[in-house]
Amino acid sequence: MMVPANDIDMQLRRRAQSVIPGGMWGHQHVQRLPEGYPQYFTRGEGCRTWDANGRSYIDYLCAWGPMILGYNDPDVEEAAARQRIEGDGLNGPTPLLVDLAELVVETVPHADWALFSKNGTDATTACVTIARAGTGRRKILIARGAYHGAIPWCSPSVVGVTEEDRAHLIIYDYNDIASLDAAVTEAGADLAGILVSAFKHDVGKEHVLPTREFAARARELATNANAALIVDDVRAGFRLDLGGSWELVGVRPDLSAWSKAIANGHALAAVTGNDRFREAATRIFTTGSFWTAGVSMAASIATITKLRETGAVAHMQAMGRRLREGLQKQADQLGFKLHQSGPSQMPVFLFEGDDDRRIGNRFCLEALERGVYFHPVHTMFLSAAHTAAIIDETLEVTAEALRATANAIDHEGMRATGS
Amino acid sequence: MMVPANDIDMQLRRRAQSVIPGGMWGHQHVQRLPEGYPQYFTRGEGCRTWDANGRSYIDYLCAWGPMILGYNDPDVEEAAARQRIEGDGLNGPTPLLVDLAELVVETVPHADWALFSKNGTDATTACVTIARAGTGRRKILIARGAYHGAIPWCSPSVVGVTEEDRAHLIIYDYNDIASLDAAVTEAGADLAGILVSAFKHDVGKEHVLPTREFAARARELATNANAALIVDDVRAGFRLDLGGSWELVGVRPDLSAWSKAIANGHALAAVTGNDRFREAATRIFTTGSFWTAGVSMAASIATITKLRETGAVAHMQAMGRRLREGLQKQADQLGFKLHQSGPSQMPVFLFEGDDDRRIGNRFCLEALERGVYFHPVHTMFLSAAHTAAIIDETLEVTAEALRATANAIDHEGMRATGS
Repeated sequence: MMVPANDIDMQLRRRAQSVIPGGMWGHQHVQRLPEGYPQYFTRGEGCRTWDANGRSYIDYLCAWGPMILGYNDPDVEEAAARQRIEGDGLNGPTPLLVDLAELVVETVPHADWALFSKNGTDATTACVTIARAGTGRRKILIARGAYHGAIPWCSPSVVGVTEEDRAHLIIYDYNDIASLDAAVTEAGADLAGILVSAFKHDVGKEHVLPTREFAARARELATNANAALIVDDVRAGFRLDLGGSWELVGVRPDLSAWSKAIANGHALAAVTGNDRFREAATRIFTTGSFWTAGVSMAASIATITKLRETGAVAHMQAMGRRLREGLQKQADQLGFKLHQSGPSQMPVFLFEGDDDRRIGNRFCLEALERGVYFHPVHTMFLSAAHTAAIIDETLEVTAEALRATANAIDHEGMRATGS
Repeated sequence: MMVPANDIDMQLRRRAQSVIPGGMWGHQHVQRLPEGYPQYFTRGEGCRTWDANGRSYIDYLCAWGPMILGYNDPDVEEAAARQRIEGDGLNGPTPLLVDLAELVVETVPHADWALFSKNGTDATTACVTIARAGTGRRKILIARGAYHGAIPWCSPSVVGVTEEDRAHLIIYDYNDIASLDAAVTEAGADLAGILVSAFKHDVGKEHVLPTREFAARARELATNANAALIVDDVRAGFRLDLGGSWELVGVRPDLSAWSKAIANGHALAAVTGNDRFREAATRIFTTGSFWTAGVSMAASIATITKLRETGAVAHMQAMGRRLREGLQKQADQLGFKLHQSGPSQMPVFLFEGDDDRRIGNRFCLEALERGVYFHPVHTMFLSAAHTAAIIDETLEVTAEALRATANAIDHEGMRATGS
């Protein structure tokens, strides 16, 4: 197959086929998206991103979450560049480790301490290990379908995974108190921890915030059993509440895992914990070659400080609402049964009766063609760089994209006949 | 306890005590070193590093390995800075992913493909998962005492680890063919992979290169069983041979794990593999939020290119030999039974009969005080920035440090009476 010289994305994919298994791996593999999405990107600036073919988009994926202040934020990058001249990885941490740990402890009410690493998976794994060390028990409760990382104990795939890797996991259903109670009963005296996502954000499903009752019950069960309540805030952290996502439901975990947005795109993750688990955190062994590197910590301090000072969470929420309301009106007018769920700043758009994703995929492709990057099934992300003008520009695109989708599916007889 | 205002390191440690469990975690915890070592560092440049109190050292730890061209290498940092302006983490990889994968495949003879991640542990874990996926079997053979990462399946600590996490590991002794044969027999039809370190580099023990016989036998056993031979080249990779450390013994693995030196300090790791395991690598799920970020890949391309073009491996080896020979002469003259082992560019210094480490610790502290940073028990690292003049400057320090150590231990009656 000849690839046109101006289709750089397809040329890269062809080259990748020989040196990368399957051409790409993991969540960024373009095979997980409808045909028409670009695989390769070259640039990000604010809320805009450019693909390898030079097309630009208003971006609602934010590099899958990390870009909370927008790409290439000048304050974050200035802090990072300044630290880069001094030192990044050294024989020990830089003083920024202490500054950052203090800032995190000050910002996150449940946190008496913090540890840092590189991947969300590093943080969730350390939380589980600390819970087991602190309790001397083994069972970890996790919600059906929840994503907590990509190593054998938690990967969404079981290829190359042994049964023993998950021997001590017990499944409950998110927001279902009876199922959580049953899982706690099943764990019995061996309950080490209850692991909960910040909210239910399974791929391809409606996103659901925790109910106050569920959150309170999870807290109560963990406390009664002297087990750890662990919030996986990797995806949502710093977008819903700077103090941790479960502040919204009035519940404080013992341990939390953070990553993605913590340093506006610089590779960093964190575990925060309370004093009940400090001693256990001291005893476990967790480490990595780049975990105390100064540049990502400078970036994190700049990110958290700017989030605090600028009221970014409220801004993202308001912008998300503006997008949601505008889009809903457009969808309703055209008779689409559009379900927008999740916090407004972390939305997912799903169409009723669209099990084969034909409507959602078509809508996203029509938007993509017009310069707006949505994801058809995964949690999306707004950043502080998404302004009202950007949302309105987006809504002009979605109006056209929905009309084009309506025309296409009328033609194909795909639209759900409703309202 | 009052800490003097000019002892910034101690002030940082005090602050850290309240916001970091135990004040620090992992391999960089200063508690693992003799009293007198600094915990915090502020700067690195070439082969020199500065601690938080402003003292500078000729550094033989190289940030525990990553700094292979020296701290703040201008070519690497220029490439990184240029990419930083363009884009780091985006919705998909940058074209640098393909460039880097091609460069790695071209540089590493056994590699038909590459995958990238952030930690050495990510890479070793992916290797094990790919081996299991490719064979449909479970048993992984690992050498007694070998370090392969810091999550439950491989951590050197079992605190917070369950028995099941290691259910399918079988232990052999490095360089011991009979024990490897026995482990293969024990695994039987369930053998997925044989995991070997590049060389035996256990903390506090003499470092031993693989024998040709052992390496050939490991290859033969894996091939006969249709299992994977996996080299953990995280620590040694790019310092012994750019094509992989087992090129030195004429054996090519099926899979290798890389990290540390791959991007001269930028957070990056890699798995390389041959075509036998390409399909398995396509099927497993491994991913992370920052794994395709462009800046660390730009740094890696610049690092590998410079290593190739400058003959850095031969230089580091020669400089290591210069240090080793000079130091040995000094030690012999003073009657120290100094055992220097490991490749010269990754040495460890151990004194005979020094089980309580009093001689080794004292020597390292005397060197530290005179501006040379050695590690008393861990693998050390030379970089391309260690010149002959630097080695000679180091040897002036070691001469004094050894004399001071001799005086101290004569006083304490500590010296092994020899030669």
